[in-house]
Amino acid sequence: MADPKILETFPNPAPHRDYVIEHSHHEFTSMCPITGHPDFATIKVRFVPEKTCVELKSLKLYFHAFRNAGIFFEAVTNKICDDIGNTLQPRELTIIADWKGRGGITSIVTATWSPKKAKKRG
Amino acid sequence: MADPKILETFPNPAPHRDYVIEHSHHEFTSMCPITGHPDFATIKVRFVPEKTCVELKSLKLYFHAFRNAGIFFEAVTNKICDDIGNTLQPRELTIIADWKGRGGITSIVTATWSPKKAKKRG
Amino acid sequence: MADPKILETFPNPAPHRDYVIEHSHHEFTSMCPITGHPDFATIKVRFVPEKTCVELKSLKLYFHAFRNAGIFFEAVTNKICDDIGNTLQPRELTIIADWKGRGGITSIVTATWSPKKAKKRG
Amino acid sequence: MADPKILETFPNPAPHRDYVIEHSHHEFTSMCPITGHPDFATIKVRFVPEKTCVELKSLKLYFHAFRNAGIFFEAVTNKICDDIGNTLQPRELTIIADWKGRGGITSIVTATWSPKKAKKRG
Amino acid sequence: MADPKILETFPNPAPHRDYVIEHSHHEFTSMCPITGHPDFATIKVRFVPEKTCVELKSLKLYFHAFRNAGIFFEAVTNKICDDIGNTLQPRELTIIADWKGRGGITSIVTATWSPKKAKKRG
Amino acid sequence: MADPKILETFPNPAPHRDYVIEHSHHEFTSMCPITGHPDFATIKVRFVPEKTCVELKSLKLYFHAFRNAGIFFEAVTNKICDDIGNTLQPRELTIIADWKGRGGITSIVTATWSPKKAKKRG
Amino acid sequence: MADPKILETFPNPAPHRDYVIEHSHHEFTSMCPITGHPDFATIKVRFVPEKTCVELKSLKLYFHAFRNAGIFFEAVTNKICDDIGNTLQPRELTIIADWKGRGGITSIVTATWSPKKAKKRG
Amino acid sequence: MADPKILETFPNPAPHRDYVIEHSHHEFTSMCPITGHPDFATIKVRFVPEKTCVELKSLKLYFHAFRNAGIFFEAVTNKICDDIGNTLQPRELTIIADWKGRGGITSIVTATWSPKKAKKRG
Amino acid sequence: MADPKILETFPNPAPHRDYVIEHSHHEFTSMCPITGHPDFATIKVRFVPEKTCVELKSLKLYFHAFRNAGIFFEAVTNKICDDIGNTLQPRELTIIADWKGRGGITSIVTATWSPKKAKKRG
Amino acid sequence: MADPKILETFPNPAPHRDYVIEHSHHEFTSMCPITGHPDFATIKVRFVPEKTCVELKSLKLYFHAFRNAGIFFEAVTNKICDDIGNTLQPRELTIIADWKGRGGITSIVTATWSPKKAKKRG
Repeated sequence: MADPKILETFPNPAPHRDYVIEHSHHEFTSMCPITGHPDFATIKVRFVPEKTCVELKSLKLYFHAFRNAGIFFEAVTNKICDDIGNTLQPRELTIIADWKGRGGITSIVTATWSPKKAKKRG
Repeated sequence: MADPKILETFPNPAPHRDYVIEHSHHEFTSMCPITGHPDFATIKVRFVPEKTCVELKSLKLYFHAFRNAGIFFEAVTNKICDDIGNTLQPRELTIIADWKGRGGITSIVTATWSPKKAKKRG
Repeated sequence: MADPKILETFPNPAPHRDYVIEHSHHEFTSMCPITGHPDFATIKVRFVPEKTCVELKSLKLYFHAFRNAGIFFEAVTNKICDDIGNTLQPRELTIIADWKGRGGITSIVTATWSPKKAKKRG
Repeated sequence: MADPKILETFPNPAPHRDYVIEHSHHEFTSMCPITGHPDFATIKVRFVPEKTCVELKSLKLYFHAFRNAGIFFEAVTNKICDDIGNTLQPRELTIIADWKGRGGITSIVTATWSPKKAKKRG
Repeated sequence: MADPKILETFPNPAPHRDYVIEHSHHEFTSMCPITGHPDFATIKVRFVPEKTCVELKSLKLYFHAFRNAGIFFEAVTNKICDDIGNTLQPRELTIIADWKGRGGITSIVTATWSPKKAKKRG
Repeated sequence: MADPKILETFPNPAPHRDYVIEHSHHEFTSMCPITGHPDFATIKVRFVPEKTCVELKSLKLYFHAFRNAGIFFEAVTNKICDDIGNTLQPRELTIIADWKGRGGITSIVTATWSPKKAKKRG
Repeated sequence: MADPKILETFPNPAPHRDYVIEHSHHEFTSMCPITGHPDFATIKVRFVPEKTCVELKSLKLYFHAFRNAGIFFEAVTNKICDDIGNTLQPRELTIIADWKGRGGITSIVTATWSPKKAKKRG
Repeated sequence: MADPKILETFPNPAPHRDYVIEHSHHEFTSMCPITGHPDFATIKVRFVPEKTCVELKSLKLYFHAFRNAGIFFEAVTNKICDDIGNTLQPRELTIIADWKGRGGITSIVTATWSPKKAKKRG
Repeated sequence: MADPKILETFPNPAPHRDYVIEHSHHEFTSMCPITGHPDFATIKVRFVPEKTCVELKSLKLYFHAFRNAGIFFEAVTNKICDDIGNTLQPRELTIIADWKGRGGITSIVTATWSPKKAKKRG
Repeated sequence: MADPKILETFPNPAPHRDYVIEHSHHEFTSMCPITGHPDFATIKVRFVPEKTCVELKSLKLYFHAFRNAGIFFEAVTNKICDDIGNTLQPRELTIIADWKGRGGITSIVTATWSPKKAKKRG
């Protein structure tokens, strides 16, 4: 399973400004934990940086680490949301996972990270 | 006619967070109750889970159970909305049924489930 | 000219709920009252039903009845809006008529029916 | 240069209702005042009529009259906005000019006419 | 690296009106400062002019000046935002940089210029 | 029913050369002779001219004359092929009629005119 | 299972000419004989008529008759090819069945009917 | 009317090889000689060079020179074919002119230049 | 590495006829043998069956078995061609592998199996 | 200017078979030798390998080496054709360069390498 420690960061070059960064990974793949069949998705990471941005190559390697993990659509989307939220501590963060179809059904899971809720749970 | 008991659920893996799940079934088919001609639709199920999510294979089988049912566009959309709403008791739920054309007319029916209204009717 | 009496209705199967029905007729044609040249449009009828829904075959025949009528874009859109509004008495109703081009110009006319304004004019 | 007197109007057939008319001219062409190179655009005229609508053939001829005029993107969009606003005196009016590229750059200029501001300037 | 002095301006032909100008440069290219690999983007410059507009040929040359500059996605987007904001002093300004993929990841960076924040930093 | 005498011709400006002219009418409509329902098609007329070309406005009026004719897909395509072939006596001629769907079925009918076969039948 | 006797024919209106008719049914559905899951396809019937053409409504009903038949992709395509070939005895006939995906695999099966081979087998 | 002397050439950099150059001008416009209405086309110039290639800027200016010329579709295509053929004396040359619609009809005219036929006519 | 013994077959239901079956797997993934980065492709298997067809679920499992294999584009395409050719002994077989880009380059590899050449090598 | 020595090769894994490899580089850029403006193209390299294939990373670096070279469309296409032909000595080779527009004109240059002609010139 992907470890959030893979993610590397660099200092936000424009912390005086609220601006939006959206990285879309078009080649995400993991495994269905029940059938073992592969799942495929496009994962969007959309955030307003606070102190740090995410380094792109490390983001790619973090996503690659799910390749042979067995995990449900809903769980993987929430894990990515937690991992990136906790690493970057951004002003805002939304994860959109758009899954290719299984048996004629496609799925989109959208989760938003909140600094407050994250703290409350801790 | 499709029985909502076909639908199976599993525990929401992230109940601390409001997030959106959207399943789109691209191969829905039922029958016109008057002419007996087949109708075809894409059905979107968009919801914010509370305690449970819907298991995908059971959702597919639930949709397959309409294959030979004679039922109007407006009625089938509202039945799916009621069945999934009552089963999942989600925070929010919208059903969007996008029907292929009959005689040069295509139709989209959009219904939103409300916990309060559902109770009032009971 | 199309007579609104062609339109047939059936009881709304879910009057306890505000939901949206959108029928799109892709084969509307009428005539320019000045040049006699044919006009072509896609007509969208989007409404929230109150007591009745419109029966689809009668809607198609109502649209077919404009085939040889000479009438301007603006007038035909408003007539359809009045005819369907007065027949269904819906909670909300919008007509969107998207006309193919004449001389390099395409046109979209969008009209919304209002129960109150309809009464005031009567 | 195009003279707004080319524009002809006819009475609004539904003055009791706020509705939107959008005419899109896909074949607009004028000249760059500096290089003399031709420019090409799609011009959208979107308005809510008050007392009058614009006659389509006269609108086409008004646009054709820019064919050999040397005028910048920003100026021509504002001139069309002023000419049609002053002629129709509509409840609302927006002009959207979408220009094909020059040197790898495309441009969209969007201007909204306001009855009050128009008067203030007079 | 691109020098904002390359940018030339001309007087806003319609200062009495808030209107939007959007220039899209489809052929932006710069270099990754670490790997030296080329990056490609479409850059949108969307603004409401105050006293001046930007001359298109100078905008193109300003963009060309990044061709062999080594600079990260986030930094280049914020630099363009600062350069054009400081030069035009517009009522509003947004830069949208849409980057072609590296290793299966595409990125969009969106920054908005604010007269107040710009002053505070000075 | 459309009369081929509506078709007007003008002299081929380049009879020394075999070249291809293809006119596509995107707004053809006729009626089903059994149900009376309207049919819609795009009609392509592709030919190598010999002595004459077809005048475009007369071609449009010829197509308009089918508006209220009751005639099957196969018959109308062959009639257009015969009418234009006999009028132009071209070196080659093909008619491609692409019909919008009825009941989920779309149809394309393609007929080629031959000077020899036309004579044999006479 | 669909019976070819459902197919009705009418006399070819242009037997003096080789011309091509292509009917595409976009709503074909049958069942997988092993899993019972529904399959969906677009079926193209492309032929050069000899003495008869196929009546469209009967073709639609013939296709509808496969709705609950359990039959493999390869077998159904060949059955349609045999049924229509034997009924029409056309000069040429090709069936193209384009199947929606199962488990990430889509399939196209293309079969051509031959009068000679058909006789040899008889 | 455009004068072929506007066209400039440069030596073919690879005369030892048959290779194909295809220039597509997307902004061609001329005038209808009868109605005076503007026509718009994309013009493709596809050729195998012999001794010379055509310089792109001069090709653009040659096309611009048709802006206010009144000339039919068929005639302008053949004139471009003759002008470029006579100027370049290429091994092969085809002109494809794809015209935007008038009254619901679009047109494509395709002409091929032949060294032999060109000589015969001279 | 995928073992061709995974592939299962069933008897060709129409051996009297040459017909084409084309299966497209849209979710193929393997690994670069040098960098370890994942590769993604759509694989088309197009063949004319002789005695046997390939069972679809076994084809999917055969493709899944490449998931963690390190193998070059050219080698994997030829291995699939050999494995399926040797298993089915079809009348004709072509494999088309369409690879998603690496570093701005996409690749298509197309190989055709030949019974004769296969034997010669044995 | 790009040096063909940058290109690296590896042994053809299936020399017993004629098969086609097509690499498409979507991010080619060079400079106009006269104006200094950047040009952009997609370059397709389609070949049947003999003894060697081209290594993808070296192909990318070979293309990157044109970034600041001033060279015409026709010349660069032929140079790539010669460089890759001479390096791989393939059974067949075609280069297709598809250039983004300059002044409303896009261009495609297609060159085919021939072992014989290459030798004759040497």
